[in-house]
Order: sequence, then structure tokens, then C-alpha cells
Amino acid sequence: MNLRSIEEKEFFPGFKGKFVHGKSISWAFWDVKKGAKVDLHKHYHEQIMHVIDGEFEFTLSDETKIYRSGDIVLIPSNIEHSGTALTDCKLMDVFSPAREEYK
Amino acid sequence: MNLRSIEEKEFFPGFKGKFVHGKSISWAFWDVKKGAKVDLHKHYHEQIMHVIDGEFEFTLSDETKIYRSGDIVLIPSNIEHSGTALTDCKLMDVFSPAREEYK
Repeated sequence: MNLRSIEEKEFFPGFKGKFVHGKSISWAFWDVKKGAKVDLHKHYHEQIMHVIDGEFEFTLSDETKIYRSGDIVLIPSNIEHSGTALTDCKLMDVFSPAREEYK
Repeated sequence: MNLRSIEEKEFFPGFKGKFVHGKSISWAFWDVKKGAKVDLHKHYHEQIMHVIDGEFEFTLSDETKIYRSGDIVLIPSNIEHSGTALTDCKLMDVFSPAREEYK
């Protein structure tokens, strides 16, 4: 399959994502509009976030930082996190186990 | 952490990789030299391969194809696979569980 042919879904306002799901992995490719936010939330899935492009303000537990191209953040299971796109952003997220609710 | 500051390791000749490990996920960022090969192998870790750039000839089970920018391949647990870089390539691989041998 090719990223170009995967249908984009807008799970949160301003977050358009393409998803690839294995048995135990979900890989999300996000196009995020400037100003879009994901509220504080947590999940038992481990997550690794990778900023491809743009500036993304991200809070993990009680630490808030601005992440940019090449930055990678480990988000352990059940740790609260939230984020705001300070510019249009391209992000990738990898999850394990797979995110059934994004299938 | 940032990709630029992660040390590159050459686990196979011509495959220089940067690795990010979570508890149950490993994410590999590869720079592959034209002509470099990974022999047929398998592992119990599920894998998702994503070609960022270049042409990568990849065999999964008994199917061989050439993959290019944007292509994504699901490699189930314990299925044999091999690959050859037809050009210099940039690839990403995500694994779950984590690849302890790449830590």
C-alpha cells in the first residue's frame, strides 16, 4: 500500500490522519492545522511521536516543550499528554498495541 | 531527543540505522547504500516498513516487488523477508515487541 492511496480521517478537529494497522502496531501519519489541539488524555498503548515538520507544543505529564523537525518523544503507557500545533505540522505516531478505535 | 543527535549504527553492511526504543516498540531510521542487501530472515516481532526515498526491492514470503517513496509493507510475525537497495534509500521500520538486539 502507499500513503497517497490511504484515506485521510479527521479524528480530532484539525488533525487529519492516515493509519496503517498491523496486529500489534498502529502507525499514524498526521497533517495538523495550525492551532489544532488534542486535549489531555491517556491510553494504555505505548506511543512514540515523531515531528516531521512544523512546531508542536506538547505536554507529557507535567513537562511542556516545543518540538520541531526530527524530534522524537516516548510516551509511556497511561501517562497523560496533550498537544497544540503552533504551525501547520506533519507528525507521525506509532502505537503498540494497535489502536482498535482508529481502525 | 532528536534524530540528528542519535548515533548511527551499521548493523548490516550498507545499512546505517538510528534506533528509538520504547518498552514494546522499536523504531528504526535507515540510510541504505545502493546495492546493500539484507538476506532472507524472520523474527517473531511484527514489522511495518515505510519507504521514504529511493527504490527498495523487497521479498516477503514468495512475493518480490520494488517499493518506492510512500510505500508501506506489513511484515507479520515469523514471515521470511529480504531486501536489496536498488538506489540509495531512506527507510523506516517499526517493530513490536522491541528489538532487544538493536539496543
